[in-house]
Amino acid sequence: MAARQIYFDNNATTPLHPEVRKEMVAAMDMYGNPSSMHAYGREARANVEDARKRVARFMGADESEIVFTGSGSEANNTVLSLFVCHTTQCIPGMRQTIVTSKIEHPCVLETSDCLKHRGVDVKYLEVDGYGKVDLGQLEETLKSTSVGLVSVMMANNEIGTLQDIPVISRLAHKYGALMHTDAVQAFGKVPVNVDDLGVDFLTVSGHKIYGPKGIGALYVRKGIPYCPFIRGGHQERGRRAGTENTLGIMGLGMAVDMRAAEMAAEEVRLQGLRDILKKGIGERIDEALFNGHPTDSLANTLNVSFPGAEGEAILLYLDLAGIAVSTGSACASGSLDPSHVLLATGVDAERAHGSIRISLGRENTLDDVEYMLEVLPGVINRIRNMSTAYIKGGVHASAR
Amino acid sequence: MAARQIYFDNNATTPLHPEVRKEMVAAMDMYGNPSSMHAYGREARANVEDARKRVARFMGADESEIVFTGSGSEANNTVLSLFVCHTTQCIPGMRQTIVTSKIEHPCVLETSDCLKHRGVDVKYLEVDGYGKVDLGQLEETLKSTSVGLVSVMMANNEIGTLQDIPVISRLAHKYGALMHTDAVQAFGKVPVNVDDLGVDFLTVSGHKIYGPKGIGALYVRKGIPYCPFIRGGHQERGRRAGTENTLGIMGLGMAVDMRAAEMAAEEVRLQGLRDILKKGIGERIDEALFNGHPTDSLANTLNVSFPGAEGEAILLYLDLAGIAVSTGSACASGSLDPSHVLLATGVDAERAHGSIRISLGRENTLDDVEYMLEVLPGVINRIRNMSTAYIKGGVHASAR
Repeated sequence: MAARQIYFDNNATTPLHPEVRKEMVAAMDMYGNPSSMHAYGREARANVEDARKRVARFMGADESEIVFTGSGSEANNTVLSLFVCHTTQCIPGMRQTIVTSKIEHPCVLETSDCLKHRGVDVKYLEVDGYGKVDLGQLEETLKSTSVGLVSVMMANNEIGTLQDIPVISRLAHKYGALMHTDAVQAFGKVPVNVDDLGVDFLTVSGHKIYGPKGIGALYVRKGIPYCPFIRGGHQERGRRAGTENTLGIMGLGMAVDMRAAEMAAEEVRLQGLRDILKKGIGERIDEALFNGHPTDSLANTLNVSFPGAEGEAILLYLDLAGIAVSTGSACASGSLDPSHVLLATGVDAERAHGSIRISLGRENTLDDVEYMLEVLPGVINRIRNMSTAYIKGGVHASAR
Repeated sequence: MAARQIYFDNNATTPLHPEVRKEMVAAMDMYGNPSSMHAYGREARANVEDARKRVARFMGADESEIVFTGSGSEANNTVLSLFVCHTTQCIPGMRQTIVTSKIEHPCVLETSDCLKHRGVDVKYLEVDGYGKVDLGQLEETLKSTSVGLVSVMMANNEIGTLQDIPVISRLAHKYGALMHTDAVQAFGKVPVNVDDLGVDFLTVSGHKIYGPKGIGALYVRKGIPYCPFIRGGHQERGRRAGTENTLGIMGLGMAVDMRAAEMAAEEVRLQGLRDILKKGIGERIDEALFNGHPTDSLANTLNVSFPGAEGEAILLYLDLAGIAVSTGSACASGSLDPSHVLLATGVDAERAHGSIRISLGRENTLDDVEYMLEVLPGVINRIRNMSTAYIKGGVHASAR
């Protein structure tokens, strides 16, 4: 273990907030099944419903519109799978086309890909060099095709780029489509209000906001067609079967409360740290190419390419120095393919391979940033020196 | 609150084992995403894989055959949904018929019901008066129909009846069908060995064995066709997307270890307590009609009907006295329909409505049983006296 440990991978997952931890430890004595009618069950039910209110309030929703799930991935699968119900008359009028973007999380891309084999048509929106979806293409598609659902993520997990969800929702609704946003990375980092966003479905996850892993939530606007994805018991008003994850739900409720209290100030602080990091990297390392939108982006996220240095090598050297970063989505790690997000923004495979994502969180300090700025230049230099292929401003210049 | 609190609803859910609680509290400091390559991720990965080994070992499986899920319901949905993949060429050879029983958990019955709308044929096996499935009907069905999957639960949650899974598996395989058992209630109460059982799929749940809610596992025999239910990331070897519920998984691992250490002695003890309870109820209360198999049954489960007394009224009066029981499955509570399990055993609706389930667990003592035997006769008498319809040995005699 390195003497110093710095966690810069908060978009992959976050440590539990101390208050969440306290809430969960206390909740361990409460073990009733929320479906049970006796005192144990009623206590568990009351706690679950209290957490539901907290989550709903933070996004301007009604508590009846919140369905707890086992993850953000499950919530996204739930929304897209409404199309399978189409073919079974659960939702008779559902149009058979999904529009999504090329930079969505794998759980949206792979699920929509699977639906293609079930007779659903899927259109993928292009993004520009900053990762913003092509609104012209969206409107063209909506005009020319009978679209059932538009699903565009609110903030990208790899590059942090924020989409103009209210504009996309208005377009979707103008042409009679439903609107879903995967807000897993945005929720708790930027204000999320379902009415301002105009969405019909919205996905959140506990472990990205200092809550536990294994819990997510899906907002489903009142009156919108819905069909359970996991079937069975009557839990979650018949919308998601399975005994409620009471500890996870209570942890999520407390995580949301803590975000409500801390988010505004915290995001200003993180943006300050991120900007120092960005400036320092730019000054100290040749050819540091930043990815994503320069301003319309998550405050905590910095994605940068170092031509001539493999992302995985950078990650491993930083790890030896006690610093945790990622090469992109944790959900795609282990894959040798370059990031589909960076490729979609027009970055070439070479540059995409030489990228790391630094994502800050509430435990990071200016000290952490300064230590990173001490360590990173040496790491990049060492890797570039080992790489015979790297010529400054050479083979990679075109990738800029 | 009553002065005394006794929890007799362990088939609905169980309190955390103290060792599970300790494991989970300690694990709260470990927050890496098991998919991350850095030290935080590797630590989380190692803990997840260690828990997977424990779960696998306890059922005689290989660790590569265990897929963690968000619940037993999700695991059951996963298995049944393989039929939907059939139509998408994921599993080309899958035959289009499921055989299951009339007494399965709602997550099997409702999912198979949904599949009927997607072109899958579902046959429901009858059960005898003790809740044992009709093996003759099973073989007839397998002979006459091209069956893809047989899904029969190992132990019934409401009446405790155990099925002869090895016999059912042999029959299923004889006719080329795959075999699944929902072992949520059996696992950790009776020995479960996937080879002895001969199953291809087996479902377990954490919160029924003194582990946390929100975690389950699915055993998938090597080489058996499989398709993920929740799609997206590569987690669980590409078999279940979504960031791993590390706390839940570690809790499940510890819960399994504790069952391995305690189960054998504990089940003897619980059977002793259950038998005292049964004898006492029989002696002290007129017309106490026991449901389920008299011997081939879970040691901790007692399901009993009291003609002339509504199950919900009994539950509420016992609750006032600090005793928690249920009227059947917690997953079906709130429903006014009589238990589908009891109806399937030939019990009439009237008697089914007058039933309660007492399910014992590791925290129960002889004192608890004695207190129950003091309280219950009075409760039944009071309710029967209020009910003008009750005539001893009268309208309900036919239901015996």
